[in-house]
Amino acid sequence: MPRPLRLTIWNEYIHELEHDSVRALYPSGIHTVLADAISGLLGDRIQIRIATFEQEEHGLTYEALAETDVLTWWGHAAHDRVSDEVVQRVHTRVLNGMGLIALHSAHNSKIFKRLMGTTCMLRWREAAEKERVWIVDPSHPIAQGLTDEYFEIPHSEMYGEHFDVPQPDELFAISWFEGGEVFRSGCTWRRGKGKVVYFSPGHETFPIYHDANVQRIIANAVTWAAPTGGLYLGKGRNIPQSLSPIAAKHVVDESLHRPK
Amino acid sequence: MPRPLRLTIWNEYIHELEHDSVRALYPSGIHTVLADAISGLLGDRIQIRIATFEQEEHGLTYEALAETDVLTWWGHAAHDRVSDEVVQRVHTRVLNGMGLIALHSAHNSKIFKRLMGTTCMLRWREAAEKERVWIVDPSHPIAQGLTDEYFEIPHSEMYGEHFDVPQPDELFAISWFEGGEVFRSGCTWRRGKGKVVYFSPGHETFPIYHDANVQRIIANAVTWAAPTGGLYLGKGRNIPQSLSPIAAKHVVDESLHRPK
Amino acid sequence: MPRPLRLTIWNEYIHELEHDSVRALYPSGIHTVLADAISGLLGDRIQIRIATFEQEEHGLTYEALAETDVLTWWGHAAHDRVSDEVVQRVHTRVLNGMGLIALHSAHNSKIFKRLMGTTCMLRWREAAEKERVWIVDPSHPIAQGLTDEYFEIPHSEMYGEHFDVPQPDELFAISWFEGGEVFRSGCTWRRGKGKVVYFSPGHETFPIYHDANVQRIIANAVTWAAPTGGLYLGKGRNIPQSLSPIAAKHVVDESLHRPK
Amino acid sequence: MPRPLRLTIWNEYIHELEHDSVRALYPSGIHTVLADAISGLLGDRIQIRIATFEQEEHGLTYEALAETDVLTWWGHAAHDRVSDEVVQRVHTRVLNGMGLIALHSAHNSKIFKRLMGTTCMLRWREAAEKERVWIVDPSHPIAQGLTDEYFEIPHSEMYGEHFDVPQPDELFAISWFEGGEVFRSGCTWRRGKGKVVYFSPGHETFPIYHDANVQRIIANAVTWAAPTGGLYLGKGRNIPQSLSPIAAKHVVDESLHRPK
Repeated sequence: MPRPLRLTIWNEYIHELEHDSVRALYPSGIHTVLADAISGLLGDRIQIRIATFEQEEHGLTYEALAETDVLTWWGHAAHDRVSDEVVQRVHTRVLNGMGLIALHSAHNSKIFKRLMGTTCMLRWREAAEKERVWIVDPSHPIAQGLTDEYFEIPHSEMYGEHFDVPQPDELFAISWFEGGEVFRSGCTWRRGKGKVVYFSPGHETFPIYHDANVQRIIANAVTWAAPTGGLYLGKGRNIPQSLSPIAAKHVVDESLHRPK
Repeated sequence: MPRPLRLTIWNEYIHELEHDSVRALYPSGIHTVLADAISGLLGDRIQIRIATFEQEEHGLTYEALAETDVLTWWGHAAHDRVSDEVVQRVHTRVLNGMGLIALHSAHNSKIFKRLMGTTCMLRWREAAEKERVWIVDPSHPIAQGLTDEYFEIPHSEMYGEHFDVPQPDELFAISWFEGGEVFRSGCTWRRGKGKVVYFSPGHETFPIYHDANVQRIIANAVTWAAPTGGLYLGKGRNIPQSLSPIAAKHVVDESLHRPK
Repeated sequence: MPRPLRLTIWNEYIHELEHDSVRALYPSGIHTVLADAISGLLGDRIQIRIATFEQEEHGLTYEALAETDVLTWWGHAAHDRVSDEVVQRVHTRVLNGMGLIALHSAHNSKIFKRLMGTTCMLRWREAAEKERVWIVDPSHPIAQGLTDEYFEIPHSEMYGEHFDVPQPDELFAISWFEGGEVFRSGCTWRRGKGKVVYFSPGHETFPIYHDANVQRIIANAVTWAAPTGGLYLGKGRNIPQSLSPIAAKHVVDESLHRPK
Repeated sequence: MPRPLRLTIWNEYIHELEHDSVRALYPSGIHTVLADAISGLLGDRIQIRIATFEQEEHGLTYEALAETDVLTWWGHAAHDRVSDEVVQRVHTRVLNGMGLIALHSAHNSKIFKRLMGTTCMLRWREAAEKERVWIVDPSHPIAQGLTDEYFEIPHSEMYGEHFDVPQPDELFAISWFEGGEVFRSGCTWRRGKGKVVYFSPGHETFPIYHDANVQRIIANAVTWAAPTGGLYLGKGRNIPQSLSPIAAKHVVDESLHRPK
């Protein structure tokens, strides 16, 4: 049997401690609801670790990341206070193969913006409106197990276009909002050896992470973003010896080159 | 008549001053060769400004960038010494519509890596070998005016795969190297409102920027990367009032939300 | 001054002749409304020809296509009766550079399905509901001149996901429908040298082609899809003589090869 | 244990019977070499069936396809004689989820061209030259198990750019040819629910299908192209009842609509 996938669920874990309304929905934190759900769906295939903002190095030490195959990220209130050093470390780890699942307000996290190279900004409205999530790539692995072409979230925060991200490699979901907007709510990109997923449904003041369809998509995304092996270099390599013969060598001034 | 496209040619301009072998090829700097070539090809349609590393703020002040439609970037020796503040400014300007043409060793510049979100690393060898540039997207605007399916550069620096960039939106050229490598030498991406082009042929110790085909591609890239208009927001916008009516408003705890 | 772009507007032109309700909206045919609108927006830059189903060879003779830079296509009732020979001819012409703008029910036309390689099927409902077209690629040339992030069509036919097309090269619009669906309503693909646009808003029983925003997008799409030049071969070419020397020639049995 | 993946290896099987030089390399047909290799690599995970041109309905009856998860296709001499009805059947099956691996000269098969919508033409030369296959997407599942960044084929048929296909969704290999060309030799696309792979190395007059790296890639491609589940409709569906309420219903003339 292959070893279990090692998942780290990162949760900022601030709103749940500060606001009664959030704690009422997520008494042990969003991370606990996610962990229970993913564990329930994936069983022995997954091994879960929790990390939060308040932990030393946000719980994302070099060692912790080295033993993480996929990282989910939920943050909102403290984006700016996440350590640049930790962000750099997570970035490097993604490029070397770790999957990253950016959830909801993580669109505005340092790590997601760094991987995208854009502002990742969007419209939003918190009016408890209905969101209907349409699967526009029904055979995508992340959509497996859903039983219909769409599912509904009765009360959601609206995230709307224009969403300033590079065109996704794959677009698996588009959301319809009662108040009139649309949003590319399920997207994937690849960066280096790592797979990146963004999935927008999920908000601290609504019980969205208790929804079975949302849980199914997140569990699928975790599985999908598992590292593949394969060579990857990601650093400059001077190859002085050619593979095939070079006919006429021009004189090159070796003096002026420094290592890249 | 529409106003001319405002091009800023940024050149590090260090190798030409320090190395006789480079100065022999580019006595007034790589930027001068590029400026003459582009000016010769585009005439009245272009208005060119030069900026270099040694100038204050690298010649890329807020005002200079505000009046730049397209920026070409050549750097090598001083990537690490380019000011983070200037990089941030250029990044913001690209997202707001300025075109960026990253040339040759600019694959390793701060600005290119920031837009890509990856290491942008590659193999290389300086052996004065032949490079044959194949146009794999013959109807792309950047390939217009070329008279054959490929062109040759007799002595080139090899840049080879694996090139660690996000999959290009468009791949217009692949290079064959005598010594045995291949390289995705002509790529485009869009980031925010800006268009980004990477074109690898061009090296300080070879007269590649004197080559008519290389000049044609760079001039075409400049034209292609010109800003389009259009709305672009790139910042979070709260839209409290819905566009369509929302049936049943759930109670939302307004107290916990801060501006994003 | 460059010569005008040569546009052929193809309209099936059946519903307008058979149904009073359609004729009331488009008394001289949908093609006439489109021609007037595009002509009004592009003026001297465009030269328009009309072709319809009932004309000989549907008005799309070899000569007519040879003199067409961009073709718009509106059909619905007679998809199956369009001549396979004409479809083949249009297909070849697109691959050689002619732009094709597939409008509304043209998703189900032979030519569009042939270029896509998929069924191009979708959900639909005719309930005169509101459609809100969101621009999700605000700097795309096809979106130029629009003054807001979205526009509304008060009464529209719903076209909804899942839309079975290959992932678009560019997705510029997503529609929201009052009845609850979403749709990738503005898409582009490239096939051979030709550019293909699909734009869904537009229906024979609603005055959608009288809408200024819809007209603007179609005119922009026509301009965007104009042929570029450049080499294009699209046929097999045996190149017996190598460009670079081949060291050790293995014996090849020439007897068994036939031209491809 | 999950049931084995059901692979059908389709081989035209004409050259091997007609030409001594081909039979010397593939005495029991290319299909036998592929079957042995894939079986050796995938073991119990795969169940293989062979089909050839000369069989009734080319061995691709409705029933055979219904029990096929992935189909590999090798053809060259008889492309034009493959039954249109069978091509239609394979096309439908791909859109409904069957993987298709198009090998070498299958670039010119009816089924591949139908899925692509383009001519799929290319340059070629049979000069027994060296081909060096570079992996440009080292973490792609199809590249797993390779031990280096490239591998070499000592004697190969050159396939060169321009290759007239839609831009691949993923480009995993680019080939370098001794005689001077490059080629996008490993590409993937998705069509409907099906995954399509094109892999060019492999020729009847060279022992390329005996090469361990080539075999590894083909076995990986078969695994990668396995169907996922999920809803897929691929036919028009009228949804008269809206999901969300529609405020003001405009009068619609129901009389003029026919089923799509």
